[in-house]
Order: sequence, then structure tokens, then C-alpha cells
Amino acid sequence: MFLAQRRLCSLESRAKFLKTIYSSKILGLPTSAKMSLKITNAKRIEGLDSNVWIEFTKLAADPSVVNLGQGLPDISPPIYVKEELSKIAAIDSLNQYTRGFGHPSLVKALSCLYEKIYQKQINPNKEILVTVGAYGSLFNTIQGLIDEGDEVIVIVPFYDCYEPMVRMAGATPVFIPLRPKPVDGKKWSSSDWTLDPQELASKFNSKTKAIILNTPHNPIGKVYTKEELQVIADLCIKYDTLCISDEVYEWLVYTGNKHVKIATFPGMWERTITIGSAGKTFSVTGWKLGWSIGPNHLIKHLQTVQQNTVYTCATPLQEALAQAFWIDIKRMDDPECYFNSLPKELEVKRDRMIHLLESLGLKPIVPDGGYFIIADVSLLDADLSDMKDSNEPYDYKFVKWMTKNKKLSAIPVSAFCNAETKLQFEKFVRFCFIKKDSTLDAAEEIIKGWNRQKS
Amino acid sequence: MFLAQRRLCSLESRAKFLKTIYSSKILGLPTSAKMSLKITNAKRIEGLDSNVWIEFTKLAADPSVVNLGQGLPDISPPIYVKEELSKIAAIDSLNQYTRGFGHPSLVKALSCLYEKIYQKQINPNKEILVTVGAYGSLFNTIQGLIDEGDEVIVIVPFYDCYEPMVRMAGATPVFIPLRPKPVDGKKWSSSDWTLDPQELASKFNSKTKAIILNTPHNPIGKVYTKEELQVIADLCIKYDTLCISDEVYEWLVYTGNKHVKIATFPGMWERTITIGSAGKTFSVTGWKLGWSIGPNHLIKHLQTVQQNTVYTCATPLQEALAQAFWIDIKRMDDPECYFNSLPKELEVKRDRMIHLLESLGLKPIVPDGGYFIIADVSLLDADLSDMKDSNEPYDYKFVKWMTKNKKLSAIPVSAFCNAETKLQFEKFVRFCFIKKDSTLDAAEEIIKGWNRQKS
Ligand SMILES: Cc1ncc(COP(=O)(O)O)c(C=O)c1O
Ligand SMILES: Cc1ncc(COP(=O)(O)O)c(C=O)c1O
Repeated sequence: MFLAQRRLCSLESRAKFLKTIYSSKILGLPTSAKMSLKITNAKRIEGLDSNVWIEFTKLAADPSVVNLGQGLPDISPPIYVKEELSKIAAIDSLNQYTRGFGHPSLVKALSCLYEKIYQKQINPNKEILVTVGAYGSLFNTIQGLIDEGDEVIVIVPFYDCYEPMVRMAGATPVFIPLRPKPVDGKKWSSSDWTLDPQELASKFNSKTKAIILNTPHNPIGKVYTKEELQVIADLCIKYDTLCISDEVYEWLVYTGNKHVKIATFPGMWERTITIGSAGKTFSVTGWKLGWSIGPNHLIKHLQTVQQNTVYTCATPLQEALAQAFWIDIKRMDDPECYFNSLPKELEVKRDRMIHLLESLGLKPIVPDGGYFIIADVSLLDADLSDMKDSNEPYDYKFVKWMTKNKKLSAIPVSAFCNAETKLQFEKFVRFCFIKKDSTLDAAEEIIKGWNRQKS
Repeated sequence: MFLAQRRLCSLESRAKFLKTIYSSKILGLPTSAKMSLKITNAKRIEGLDSNVWIEFTKLAADPSVVNLGQGLPDISPPIYVKEELSKIAAIDSLNQYTRGFGHPSLVKALSCLYEKIYQKQINPNKEILVTVGAYGSLFNTIQGLIDEGDEVIVIVPFYDCYEPMVRMAGATPVFIPLRPKPVDGKKWSSSDWTLDPQELASKFNSKTKAIILNTPHNPIGKVYTKEELQVIADLCIKYDTLCISDEVYEWLVYTGNKHVKIATFPGMWERTITIGSAGKTFSVTGWKLGWSIGPNHLIKHLQTVQQNTVYTCATPLQEALAQAFWIDIKRMDDPECYFNSLPKELEVKRDRMIHLLESLGLKPIVPDGGYFIIADVSLLDADLSDMKDSNEPYDYKFVKWMTKNKKLSAIPVSAFCNAETKLQFEKFVRFCFIKKDSTLDAAEEIIKGWNRQKS
């Protein structure tokens, strides 16, 4: 098939190329020289073109590399999720446009699910917006509610799109790092990384329009406690600030931890947009469906952005997602419910990855949630002297070195930092553990071989 | 199933509501009163919240209404398109993230297809961007290339999102209407609607950053000729202006007409973004996949917008679309190729709709392309006196009246106009004819009944 496609392209078109004088060749150079002044990018995207995923995904594309980089499950998604999509693809009307703010059956399923969790009525049409992934929810929220000149508090490290999205809205991100407590020989846990309440308070002022929260946290795996969230909520209320709560890993919390929604705190519903993701909920990152939940007086502005950017999301995926939700909504107290079974499955993988990294001599930070682990790799004393670009942070060089020399890939944590805090995190890299056993076996083999070389 | 879902929601959650004191009830009013000043929408979306589709789709949702409104095929999409999606849904890796700027197999298929049409090599990774529908392409283009203070020429009537998208970028839309030639008893054709070259030239100046072109045209069905496009191209080059060419109906042109791509004109490739749509190409509007094609020096800025808005599009849909393209790329000279068979099928439907509208006493404008027909409905002398909102344009009132009293829906053409030109078009409504025979039969029954009442 692939060969046939190539031949098709090469035989017909390439032959024509040979006899065609390309207009680009004749006209390209002189004209583009003439027009260079006026036809450029819009200012709002100036400097926002670099992206860690593009660079490191390319690196890891080599099939001999074991990819623990991008947060992409290689386990199978639930069989019923895939089956629903297969069935729905055959239904004509479900291949056509649906309601722009969310397919009716999907917003109904979402409202039913989250009413249970919020213990509060949620209007499916007015308080929920279905978006192109959680990414689309973040974008709609920021474009709909954040103005030029506003300040937005961003906790470092942060999911990498927060900063450029805030900048694209003409606002100023104000950064505050999670700081580690010393642990003196004990295991390091993601809960040892906290915000200093005084430092946090000092970031709020009359220009603060919003704070972006992410719990469970990517990349550290921190699950904010009720007490920690109360500090944030109090400041949001005191300074009349929005809270954008990115909770895409809401189901993925491990023994001893509980995910708490800041929107359920007194006074917070009316100032919080809570963001979820089908990709993370059902291990189908390729579906790119997400949702924003919040009061209508905020959601309506996100809807306005949606209606002027993409208008509506894919119908067959939305219907399949709705059906998948109904299956699991009906058995939420059941261990088989995916919201319960996936974290159980992942906890075993997390523990395995911890042991693997420890066997290499690292002190990984045990995550309480999410599907990533970070570890300080400077302990490995890797010889990075032949990594060319010496201006790059340590972790960028390390990951490139490891990908090339060990055939194991990860993501540098400084990619989740602003320019000023990169130094604080550049010793850390992030490993993704939502991987099937054979992938983790392959990682284990690499690490065993690495250990043999060291000793 | 539906009943079971309702019961689930009502038994469990609703019971809890009764014993829960809603936080919104306790805290909602006083707090929102307190916070009303700061938590509002961003200025960029001020006044951009109205949308014709939302209003008229709701009206037409009554199942007893024959819906010729929204441009939504009710014919079956090609069987292989649906089958590809069914098969692909079962493949684990095709349910996960793919390349952000376009799934590799899809950009390859697109480059192969369009290389034939442009007679020019097209780099799949650098000169093509896959987006969330043509809508997403329009958005990425405008956000990536248009700055605050720029002027953008928009031809009236226009696909309704052009104006708010330009405004959301902080730019000023400069409108120019298509003007009808008198036809003295002859049939009116979409080609009788033209731009006045002098008037068009007068709209260009040093602030003009772009012109948005749409051919084949929605809602008039005009297919711009080579000569008409040359006038536009000359002005674009003279004023060093971008051309955003929305060609979502590129395959849908009727006997005697040919779709021409302005990007193939000398000097135009390097200043043109050409936009296509999977929804319109394969009659699957619910898939929401589109693409922008252009030189890398422009596409790279659209990519930057994509990477800060949605990051990537749905993988299973992209792969299914790629497979569908390969099937039709291989038989492009074949009458069975969907690019050839769909316009044949639609031409019959167009002619049927023309006769139907003529039988009602109307003089529809025969479209040369696309799947819409517009007609001046003021000839019907409908009694709209009981339609309340007297500030609404005539066509809004007419469509509401027709939907209510005749159970036939359409879309008012003034929805495709800016405030100043609404009066010029408010006598016209738009009918969509990509409808199965039974739908057109039902429309015919309505029109026959209507005729009997008139006589
Ligand atoms: C914290 C966080 N937010 C948002 C996203 C984006 O989610 P989606 O794929 O649903 O757009 C991710 C994906 O990795 C994430 O980790
Ligand atoms: C002229 C025109 N452009 C763009 C679009 C949007 O296409 P898509 O559904 O691919 O976003 C439409 C849909 O009706 C249209 O008519």
C-alpha cells in the first residue's frame, strides 16, 4: 500500500514537475525580497514558536529508542472505548456537525458525572464547554478571560503551554516555584514540594487576574492537599482572582492520596474554571477532547472564543466518549470502573519505575498522582562533553545524550520552567510510566546494561 | 439505554441535591455582586458572542421541520470513509497523540493530491498544516498573520466567522459587496454577481494586510473566473497583501464551470494561504478536519498558533481521512472518484431545488458551485406582521415565520453581512441542497401545499 502510494506520487506528479517551470522558482526570490517588510507574523505570537514536544518527539522517533518521554500511553485504551468509536463511525448523522458548545449526549454525561463529584447541580448547556483537548480548554479560558496587561500566576514547573498562552493573550505570567523540603535520607515524595504561603501571597496584587493550578501535577506528580488548596482559595477570594484549575489527571491518584477540587471550596465555584481531558481519562490522547466546567458567567465567554476559533468538536469522538462515560458512570463504586482500575494499574508501574531509577543510583521523587516521575540525573555524572550546544540547560543535554547513547528517552524538566527558573530545575528529567510491561522491560534492560557499564 | 441514564442521574445525584445545601445558593449572590468588576470577559471578544447557527439550529431542531438551513449533508458519506474510521478505532497507537502540525500519513496524502493540482512540489511538513476544520485554518491564519490595526478586505456576503475572527485579532474588516447585474427576465446566475474592479481597488491601501476570498462561494455559489481572480491577484501584488483563500467547496463545481486556485497565479503562491475542509470534501462535517496550504514562511506562523491553541488534531480521524484520500487519489480520472461523483450527484439536486423554488414563484440565483442556493423571498409577500422582534432584518423574520408556519427552515443571508450591508441582502434566504431525496421530497410537499394555499 505504502509503495503503491509512493509510486502514484512519483510517477504522475514528479514527471510533471520535470516539465513544469515552478512558479516559485521564477517568482519566489525577487518577490519575497520585495515583500519582506509587510508579510510577517502577528506580534502576538512573536517568540512563541519553540516547543519541547516537537524537538524531543523527533529525537525519540528512532524505533530503537525506548520512549519514556511524551505523556503518551502505549497501554491499550479500554476495549469498549474503541468499540464505541467503531460502531458510531457507521452512523451517518454522527459524522455530521453537532452542537458547537458540546455534543448533547456528551455534556449530559459530563454533567451527570460531575454532579456526583461536585455534589452540586451542573447545567450541561451553560456550565460545561467541550473543547479540543484540555489544551483547547486552557486556550479558550485564557483568551476569553485574560486581557492585555493582566497578570497571571503560574506555578513552576508548569505544563509547558501555560506560559505562551498567557503571553499570546498579551498578559504577564508571574512565576512562583514549588520548593523542595529537605528529606534527610528518607524517600523524596512529590508532597515534599510545596508553595511558600508568604511567597505566594506576595505574587497577588490588584493586577492579578488569575492563577493557574495543576493538580495532580505534571511533571512532579504532586496532589495538592485540602489545606494547600485553602491557602490558594483564600488568596483568590481576597484578591478577587480567577482560578484556572487543570485537573486532567484527576482520576490518577495513588494510595494515601485524594484529589480535591478547588471549585468545591466555599466562594470558589463562581471564580473557577476546572479543566478535564478525555485523553487522560480514557487513555486516548489522540482523541483531543476536553472540557471546561464553571459558572455560566465565565463559561459563556469561553463559548464565545470557541465559536470564533473552531466552532465545534468532532461528533463521532464526542458520541463515543459519551457512551464510554455512561459505562463507567454506572459502576463508579466498582473496582472495574476505569476511574478506579487505571490508577491501580498505574501504581504498580510507578513502583516499578521507582525501583528501576533507584537501581541506577537515582533518588526519584515518588509521585502521588499523574503518570510521570522526575529524578535528579546529575547524580549519574554522565559525560556530556560531546553534546554540542553548550548554551542548552543541563537536562536538555542529558536527555539528548541518553537518547543517543542509551537509547532511552525522557523529557527535560526545565522545559516546564520559565527562563529565570530553568536553573532551579535543570538537573531533573521526567519519565512517563503509562507504558505496557514490555516497554518497561525494555527500559529495565537498558538500565541493567547501563549499571554494568558503570561498575 | 437513555432511560437508564436518566434514572442513574436522577436517583443518585438528585437525591443528594435535596440534602445538599448548594454552595452556589449560599455564596453565589453576595460574592458575585462583590466581584462583578474584575471578573469579566477579555476585551478581544467583546460583542463577538452572537452566532446565527446557534439560533437557527435551535429553531430547526423540531423534528417536524424540514431543515434546509445549516450546511449539513444528510446524504450518507462514502462507505469507505466510515469504514476506515471503524477499522482505525481498533488500533491502539492510532488513538494516541500524533504529530502536532498534521498526522504524517495525512500530510503526505494531502501533498500528493495537491501537487497534482498545483503542478508544483508541496512539502508535507513545511507547507501544509492540518487544523480543526477549515474554521481552525481561518483562525490560525488570522491570528498568526494579522495584527492589531491591520485592515482585512472581506467580500460580502461572507461565511459568517470572517468578521468576528478579524475583529478578535484587533484588525478592521473592510467590506465590499458582490453586486448583481440586471438580467432582464433571464435566469439569474451566481456569475451575475461580481466585484466592481474600481471599487475593489479603492479598498486597498498601505494598511491592507489581507483579503479573504471564498470560491466556490457560500452562500451565493459563485465560482470566480480566472479573469476575476487575476484582478484580485494584481491588487494583492501591487499592495503587497496576503490572500486567504477559503476553497472548502473546491470539488463542488457544476457543468460549465472550473474551480481555479489563486495560489497558482504568478506571484501568488508566496502570499496565499489556501484552505480546505475534510467535512466538505467527504461529506463528513462532523470530523472537523481542515488544512492550510502555503509557503513555509507563512505556514510556520500558523503552526505557532496551532501549537499554542490546540497543539494537535484527532489522530483516528486524521488517519481515516488519509486512507480515504488515497482511495480517491488513485482514481482521480474515474467518474467514481468522490471528487467527481459528488458534484454530479449534487447538480441534480441543485436543479431540483431550482425548479421547486421557481414553482413557488421565486427567482433563485442558480449557483455554479457549492451546495447552497439563495433566493429573494420578498416576492412571496409573506405576512410577517405577527413576527415580534421588529428590529430584526426581513430575512430573519421570514425564516422564523417559514419555520413556524411552513415547517421549512433556511438561513437568512443577512447573517452573512456586516451591519452596513445587511439591508442590501435582507430579502434573500439560503437553502442547502446536499440533502437526500426523501428530504427534498418533504420540501416539495411543503412547497406544493404552500402553493395551494396561495391560489
Ligand atoms: C497538565 C496537562 N494539562 C493539559 C494537557 C493537555 O491535554 P489534552 O491532550 O487533553 O489537550 C496535558 C497533556 O499532557 C497535561 O499534562
Ligand atoms: C465557506 C466556508 N468556510 C469554512 C467553513 C468551515 O468548515 P469546517 O467545518 O471544515 O470548519 C464552512 C462551513 O460551512 C464554509 O462554508
